Amino acid sequence: MMLRATIIGYIRKPDPESIYIEIDDKYWPGALQVDQFSHIIVLWWIHERNNAENRSNLRSYPPREGAALSGVFASRSPARPTPIGLTVVKIVLLDEENRRIYIDQIDAIDGSPVVDIKPYMPFSEKVDDARVPSWFRNNVPRYTAKPLSDT
Amino acid sequence: MMLRATIIGYIRKPDPESIYIEIDDKYWPGALQVDQFSHIIVLWWIHERNNAENRSNLRSYPPREGAALSGVFASRSPARPTPIGLTVVKIVLLDEENRRIYIDQIDAIDGSPVVDIKPYMPFSEKVDDARVPSWFRNNVPRYTAKPLSDT
Repeated sequence: MMLRATIIGYIRKPDPESIYIEIDDKYWPGALQVDQFSHIIVLWWIHERNNAENRSNLRSYPPREGAALSGVFASRSPARPTPIGLTVVKIVLLDEENRRIYIDQIDAIDGSPVVDIKPYMPFSEKVDDARVPSWFRNNVPRYTAKPLSDT
Repeated sequence: MMLRATIIGYIRKPDPESIYIEIDDKYWPGALQVDQFSHIIVLWWIHERNNAENRSNLRSYPPREGAALSGVFASRSPARPTPIGLTVVKIVLLDEENRRIYIDQIDAIDGSPVVDIKPYMPFSEKVDDARVPSWFRNNVPRYTAKPLSDT
């Protein structure tokens, strides 16, 4: 089975104040109502890791103090069998005229291909008491004011 | 640019009590430490929608009362340009001997290819006050006890 992702747009970061997804003309009708959601999940291709060597990586040390050797499925390493990035972002503005979705942040470089956008649904994506290993417990939360559980 | 996803395993649902991801032998080393996390994000291919007609869908009505016509990027329709499914699930058990990750639920049919697994990180994936349109506000939350905000 051949699983081919479709590029529906690109991440653009012309300057640090301006971060947006530029949706291809053909796929812009798919953005109807997206601004009814405050947050979206952006699936993008980590294209600078789209090579055989990076895609054969299965284990590495997360860049955190005290981190244990971890499988790629227990880490967010960009070097992984399917080099797909997943980032929850906040919508800042929808620019209909230029087919842009302005967002608050994304850990993708300028020019990264976007393959899907899904609306963030608290009923399925919000987990109140998720457990993470000790080496990830000091990460500063982006969209929650409460301190993360330390259990 | 050709964006090809790698199949790292398959969803198996032999009976309603037993739902697991069977990781391919080759990719099992990537599961090291995954059970340090309580929840994971499963990225899977909606293979029964992997055809030109379904992939050209850009707008549809979400199956909810009062839902407005919505672009695919404002809905979780399985018919979309890149037919990739995203599900946050709870890990039930890691079966090392058979290379299986037992999970509590997934909205994928038996035999669906899995292309990536990422650990659920509250610091980046938990959003306290996400806004959704009115037609999604009655969805019953899976992993949060508190009622969803209605604002």
